[in-house]
Amino acid sequence: MSRFADPQDPRFRAINTSIGFDYRLAPHDLDQSTAHARMLARVGILSDDELAQLERGLEEVRAEIADGRFVVKDDDEDIHMAVERRLTEIVGPVGGKLHTARSRNDQVATDVALFVHERAHVARQMLCQLMTLLADRAEEHVDWSMPGYTHLQRAQPVYLSHHLMAHFWRLRRDAQRFEFCAHQAQVMPLGSGALAGVNFETDRDGIAEELGFTSVAPNSLDAVSNRDFVLDYLSAAAICGTHLSQLGAELVLWSSEEFGFVELPDAFASGSSIMPQKKNPDAAELLRGKAPRIVGHLTALHGVLHALPLAYNKDLQEDKEHLFDTVDTLELALNAASGMVDGARFHRERLSQAASDEMLAATDVADLLVKRGMPFRQAHGVVAGLVRHSIDRGVALSDLSEDELAELAPSLDAGYYEVLAQSSWLESKVSAGGTGLERVREQLVLAREILQQQSTLTR
Amino acid sequence: MSRFADPQDPRFRAINTSIGFDYRLAPHDLDQSTAHARMLARVGILSDDELAQLERGLEEVRAEIADGRFVVKDDDEDIHMAVERRLTEIVGPVGGKLHTARSRNDQVATDVALFVHERAHVARQMLCQLMTLLADRAEEHVDWSMPGYTHLQRAQPVYLSHHLMAHFWRLRRDAQRFEFCAHQAQVMPLGSGALAGVNFETDRDGIAEELGFTSVAPNSLDAVSNRDFVLDYLSAAAICGTHLSQLGAELVLWSSEEFGFVELPDAFASGSSIMPQKKNPDAAELLRGKAPRIVGHLTALHGVLHALPLAYNKDLQEDKEHLFDTVDTLELALNAASGMVDGARFHRERLSQAASDEMLAATDVADLLVKRGMPFRQAHGVVAGLVRHSIDRGVALSDLSEDELAELAPSLDAGYYEVLAQSSWLESKVSAGGTGLERVREQLVLAREILQQQSTLTR
Amino acid sequence: MSRFADPQDPRFRAINTSIGFDYRLAPHDLDQSTAHARMLARVGILSDDELAQLERGLEEVRAEIADGRFVVKDDDEDIHMAVERRLTEIVGPVGGKLHTARSRNDQVATDVALFVHERAHVARQMLCQLMTLLADRAEEHVDWSMPGYTHLQRAQPVYLSHHLMAHFWRLRRDAQRFEFCAHQAQVMPLGSGALAGVNFETDRDGIAEELGFTSVAPNSLDAVSNRDFVLDYLSAAAICGTHLSQLGAELVLWSSEEFGFVELPDAFASGSSIMPQKKNPDAAELLRGKAPRIVGHLTALHGVLHALPLAYNKDLQEDKEHLFDTVDTLELALNAASGMVDGARFHRERLSQAASDEMLAATDVADLLVKRGMPFRQAHGVVAGLVRHSIDRGVALSDLSEDELAELAPSLDAGYYEVLAQSSWLESKVSAGGTGLERVREQLVLAREILQQQSTLTR
Amino acid sequence: MSRFADPQDPRFRAINTSIGFDYRLAPHDLDQSTAHARMLARVGILSDDELAQLERGLEEVRAEIADGRFVVKDDDEDIHMAVERRLTEIVGPVGGKLHTARSRNDQVATDVALFVHERAHVARQMLCQLMTLLADRAEEHVDWSMPGYTHLQRAQPVYLSHHLMAHFWRLRRDAQRFEFCAHQAQVMPLGSGALAGVNFETDRDGIAEELGFTSVAPNSLDAVSNRDFVLDYLSAAAICGTHLSQLGAELVLWSSEEFGFVELPDAFASGSSIMPQKKNPDAAELLRGKAPRIVGHLTALHGVLHALPLAYNKDLQEDKEHLFDTVDTLELALNAASGMVDGARFHRERLSQAASDEMLAATDVADLLVKRGMPFRQAHGVVAGLVRHSIDRGVALSDLSEDELAELAPSLDAGYYEVLAQSSWLESKVSAGGTGLERVREQLVLAREILQQQSTLTR
Repeated sequence: MSRFADPQDPRFRAINTSIGFDYRLAPHDLDQSTAHARMLARVGILSDDELAQLERGLEEVRAEIADGRFVVKDDDEDIHMAVERRLTEIVGPVGGKLHTARSRNDQVATDVALFVHERAHVARQMLCQLMTLLADRAEEHVDWSMPGYTHLQRAQPVYLSHHLMAHFWRLRRDAQRFEFCAHQAQVMPLGSGALAGVNFETDRDGIAEELGFTSVAPNSLDAVSNRDFVLDYLSAAAICGTHLSQLGAELVLWSSEEFGFVELPDAFASGSSIMPQKKNPDAAELLRGKAPRIVGHLTALHGVLHALPLAYNKDLQEDKEHLFDTVDTLELALNAASGMVDGARFHRERLSQAASDEMLAATDVADLLVKRGMPFRQAHGVVAGLVRHSIDRGVALSDLSEDELAELAPSLDAGYYEVLAQSSWLESKVSAGGTGLERVREQLVLAREILQQQSTLTR
Repeated sequence: MSRFADPQDPRFRAINTSIGFDYRLAPHDLDQSTAHARMLARVGILSDDELAQLERGLEEVRAEIADGRFVVKDDDEDIHMAVERRLTEIVGPVGGKLHTARSRNDQVATDVALFVHERAHVARQMLCQLMTLLADRAEEHVDWSMPGYTHLQRAQPVYLSHHLMAHFWRLRRDAQRFEFCAHQAQVMPLGSGALAGVNFETDRDGIAEELGFTSVAPNSLDAVSNRDFVLDYLSAAAICGTHLSQLGAELVLWSSEEFGFVELPDAFASGSSIMPQKKNPDAAELLRGKAPRIVGHLTALHGVLHALPLAYNKDLQEDKEHLFDTVDTLELALNAASGMVDGARFHRERLSQAASDEMLAATDVADLLVKRGMPFRQAHGVVAGLVRHSIDRGVALSDLSEDELAELAPSLDAGYYEVLAQSSWLESKVSAGGTGLERVREQLVLAREILQQQSTLTR
Repeated sequence: MSRFADPQDPRFRAINTSIGFDYRLAPHDLDQSTAHARMLARVGILSDDELAQLERGLEEVRAEIADGRFVVKDDDEDIHMAVERRLTEIVGPVGGKLHTARSRNDQVATDVALFVHERAHVARQMLCQLMTLLADRAEEHVDWSMPGYTHLQRAQPVYLSHHLMAHFWRLRRDAQRFEFCAHQAQVMPLGSGALAGVNFETDRDGIAEELGFTSVAPNSLDAVSNRDFVLDYLSAAAICGTHLSQLGAELVLWSSEEFGFVELPDAFASGSSIMPQKKNPDAAELLRGKAPRIVGHLTALHGVLHALPLAYNKDLQEDKEHLFDTVDTLELALNAASGMVDGARFHRERLSQAASDEMLAATDVADLLVKRGMPFRQAHGVVAGLVRHSIDRGVALSDLSEDELAELAPSLDAGYYEVLAQSSWLESKVSAGGTGLERVREQLVLAREILQQQSTLTR
Repeated sequence: MSRFADPQDPRFRAINTSIGFDYRLAPHDLDQSTAHARMLARVGILSDDELAQLERGLEEVRAEIADGRFVVKDDDEDIHMAVERRLTEIVGPVGGKLHTARSRNDQVATDVALFVHERAHVARQMLCQLMTLLADRAEEHVDWSMPGYTHLQRAQPVYLSHHLMAHFWRLRRDAQRFEFCAHQAQVMPLGSGALAGVNFETDRDGIAEELGFTSVAPNSLDAVSNRDFVLDYLSAAAICGTHLSQLGAELVLWSSEEFGFVELPDAFASGSSIMPQKKNPDAAELLRGKAPRIVGHLTALHGVLHALPLAYNKDLQEDKEHLFDTVDTLELALNAASGMVDGARFHRERLSQAASDEMLAATDVADLLVKRGMPFRQAHGVVAGLVRHSIDRGVALSDLSEDELAELAPSLDAGYYEVLAQSSWLESKVSAGGTGLERVREQLVLAREILQQQSTLTR
């Protein structure tokens, strides 16, 4: 019997029904229903026989879903009702006992928490895989020189290894964020009922242990309305997505004819429908293009939650599509990034040639003056004068004559010409975290230690 | 023959392929291909016989798609290649002639422009339908009084008709926005080739006319990279969505036991899985909850386009899912809003009782003093004193004695008690656009004129 | 006298007070107050003498504000109360009559509408200035060849003029958006009172005419809560900002040593605190970096308006800072863009050298085959084979021998080598809107016509 | 001497200069400069005497800034150059030695990290203060009954204490987020130079210790481009802001005449310029209205960072205004929230009356049937029938006669009428985390323990 006199309007159904997307939560829903049923038996609400029937029925539903045999019916508003409906078809009226001491409000929050926990773990694993590839590629190219850039202007030379490792450290912070997120998803909502708790002495701790939660939500109103763990996932994914957009943008830039620093594998490129010569870095472009999508989902969920009163409101149903598409987008992007990092072929000559641009030594010349006692700010001015002079004359810095030098920078001597000899510029960056080879090697050791620790982290 | 030595990596395909969503553009793609083929024949690039074959083939493809018989193959990267592949299967090598003087870059921009134009028109029509319902409901309840609110505090009484019409004018502006958007989508990209124009003297004006565009894009680089019309649709939809969130929020609020101003039809409500008494305004909540989704898509597309160099970049493929989901979300919401506005049952007694709160007459009392010559600011202070006094004493304003009045507001006389008699408050709002009944009737006449004009607008 | 027993908490004031930012609306507030006072006199609510006093007082306040003599007091919650307070100090109690038949709710909406209308007009003018510069620079470089790019890969050669004009057309659509926005801000809220209209027969049409509005808001509830015109400005500014980010990104890219297509004027660049050789395109980078700021404001205002019930709510106070910072950011960016476009020095040799990359002629070779009767798709495959062969052999396309040609592409003859002679590639793009010189000249004529029309547009 | 021939254009300065906002970083900039100078002396780059001069000069600059005596000059592009310029005026050319082995790129990243760390700590403290107030108010109202809501429909009764504590747990998660953020800001960028490290053997660990960092950034390219800690602060603040919007929205709702659950203190309310009776919950509305501002800043910074190549780009200058306004907005909102939670006066009678709505017992009636052996789903249907019957008849559930009961729900007996006696409904929620009084008391104990731990956390 329903409380309602009239059937639902098709326009209502169209906007209200969630089975089209929450079907994806089925495995978690079955896990929690099984654990819930066991708890109900443990505290005496179900008999052993009833439990056995429910367990059997739930296993059958699980199998149908796994095999693609499960048929969604028109009246199945969501995955929870669909499972209960099918369960009851299989085991009879006892199926209706499963929803004792539970509401869809705590049920769906629990499903989503389980899902977030699982995907945060997967994201962390995928990040470690990509970090490993970056460390591998850095080791392969440990002493390849290239120009470092600021403002997209050549600034100072660095090793390609150092550049690749910059991406490593970004991803390492992403992994830390997903770890935080996984932790936040480990507080179990189940047992909070619709909003106020339930009319039965239940064993929440027991279910939590069975499902892998580390504690139970201490307040039922908060538990059914809390979607913080979804925001945590989206926040972490947005930052990770932004990092991948930066990696993608660099691959696009470096693949251009003008830079020519890298060639992506054929397996990660596509052609043009009209221009036969084109090899386009589509996947790298999509690393860029998909990042804002995640930021959009994060923005949207904040909008959904904005100003909502306690406790559960239907608006919360809008958490799932934002979450699911974020998970899919992020995992797709991490996969593509791994493939590209793995297969990218760097062009040593182009990199090295660009790194040998004499202008990149200007700071070293200034520091030479500093080492001879001139305040840095003054030294900077002296070298800026040399730069301007050489640009005006259209010659290289090393083409300036000793006479010119004597006039423009009296404190400089033959050491000037020595500094402009390329090899020294990179190795002069001796400070910790700098691009000097010894420092990069220290960095790689640290990176391997971190990867080692991560690999031993269990869920 | 391909330019590439290696096959595509599955991870590349997963992120690169768009057929999963751009399949939806098939009808527009077939329209433009047919028009393109006719143009190619017109300018002598195709023979009449070749055109006839292509037309026949395209019709066959269209029929397969319409009937659901069309089979997408693994290699079909997008809808354009899928159609060309199938066409060529049907008509043989001549199918390969269709892509003459065209690139996927101008092709997809054209498909999307056609789609945007169509949906902007549909949005305008759906808005007019909802506006008509609001005007109908306003007429039905033209003289029902209710409290008007500011800061969610009762402020001054208004007619329910006036309140309903406030939503009308919001939507009217939305309709204007979609009209602007439709206009912006009427500049045809087709004929711009990959980026630079094509190597043939084509007849762009002819195709434009056949497809319903009003002009052709004057710059090929701009044409293949322009997605402004998508931003225009998303911008308009975001504002419309925000308006619907406001309508939805009001229906939720008014459906609460505490307000009790409205009851939604059973056909637009749902129950609880645990609480048998519940009747929840789910669709109204989802009007709220779905609005940020559209804002999220708008934000995301801005992110996608951020800092992109000319001309086409693969990032642009990320326009479609944002657009499609926005269209679906908006149309779903407009449909649900129409259903709720149509079926809502207002509670005259609750509305009227709330409107009779004497405090709502405070401005009228102040204006009584103004009419007797007191500056408004001073009158405001006098009445504020009466309000505070009556709150302190715990009585109604009309319960203040003549003695109290004489002390606190010497300039007030028996007119004070008259003003506090309810009926006058609403009708005293005589200014244009105010809630006075005559003014509301003027407003309704204007609204009907606008609806009449809109209904005669062709695409 | 106040309705309240206790003074405001400093923490309340800190979050509530808006004078810190709405002070900027003072000129519009004074305009509307003057027009409002005149209307009050016209309908007999003020005597001629009272009007004269108010006009005198308002002029004095205006002068104080213009000269920076106006002193904001601690109790001045907002600009409206500050003006009224000061006015009353100057003219005495008659100052308290100004707020008759008006509320801050309709007052602030009117101020903001006036502000939006003004700045939308300014934005349109600044856009026309930048468009004029682009057309000028395009004419200067009308026949300079450069590579056109898709996916940041060289695709087909274009003229620099054609490329510059692509930016022109983006901005032209922006100008159209601001025109729409200005139109939407021309419906006057004033006269709507707090929410329900006012207790006086006022002359709204008269005020509207004096202030430059084209009509009066037909519904008072809508009028005091409507901020659509702010959303319209932010939406237009966001799209314009995104366009400028694309221009900025290109200037950064082209300024790199690797591209070397452009040099920004010294007056629009800055150095490094440490690297003496650096010349950084800071302003171009900030065109990029400031665009998301506008999108952020747009997102935020949507969030503010989300789910708000009618009519005025304090949340609406959060419209102004988003609007003001958007206006400042956009105008700053348009100014900087004009300066850079005006002063940029293009490097003909670098552009032309890059454009002469033979691979860019691949489409032309395919179209040669098409003109000899081969279906385009097949021709595309043949040329792709030539490309792959020449890459494998490490030679240019024109280095392939006649024997190789005969084997790989039997339908090609000496015409192949002719096509690979550079000059023909650009001029072969003969289609309307293409890069062929005649087409670019047509485009420039159209652009000048549009600029001419814009310059005659009055507000 | 400058590398540039021409002075900066005023339009360039207007967009480029940051001193207007980064002045705020002065204290952190001075801290780091002092620590940097000491390090330079420690490793022998500065003499003891030079260090003494620099320390004296930096102290003088600090004093000038603290006293407001510091004068910004037109050429002071940013706070770093302003400090160095003034320092050099005070101590002479030795001031130019301070910038040895440092760049503005690592300098500004370090300032911002110090700032983020400080404000994350402050946010955590302010959250604890607000959490303490919530726990205090919960204890005061531990056994006041009120209706709990889902979908804004009365659902089941809860204690006011339980409701208040739901907000407590949200804020506790916010505090955890700021803790994570503080941790992420403890990796020191300083010593990374412009991008590649510096040409000196420096002692980064020593500076880190002096400034309170826990480690040094392992990669210089990452260090100068990393703004993750800003994103972490904005992400945490956005979630916290959304939580506060929910608290604010509830206060607005509960302050309405219709709900009447709470009255805000006069010190946190304001009146109307036109309606003398109004008492508006402005600060609560602004808790709502300011939350999207933070989300806007977060969105914007993601946009800024989108697709940026390594290493430093000027776009990064756009981190600061987003961060500063977020900090100010959040702290303003937390302060206002504390004031309102502290001063809110709840209306016991209104709350209790609303809680006594018999419909709220429907779940309890269903569970009565469950306890007698009926599957829950069937019991739910039986009670839904009773509800519909009583609505149709227009009577209360307890008004149904025994005959009606016997017909509609044969398994129910006199226990039905007992359950409908109010007092039992709340106390029947015996499950952990539920609203039963004992459970709420457990919750309060846990909350106090957490607050105790937090108060012992040092920075």
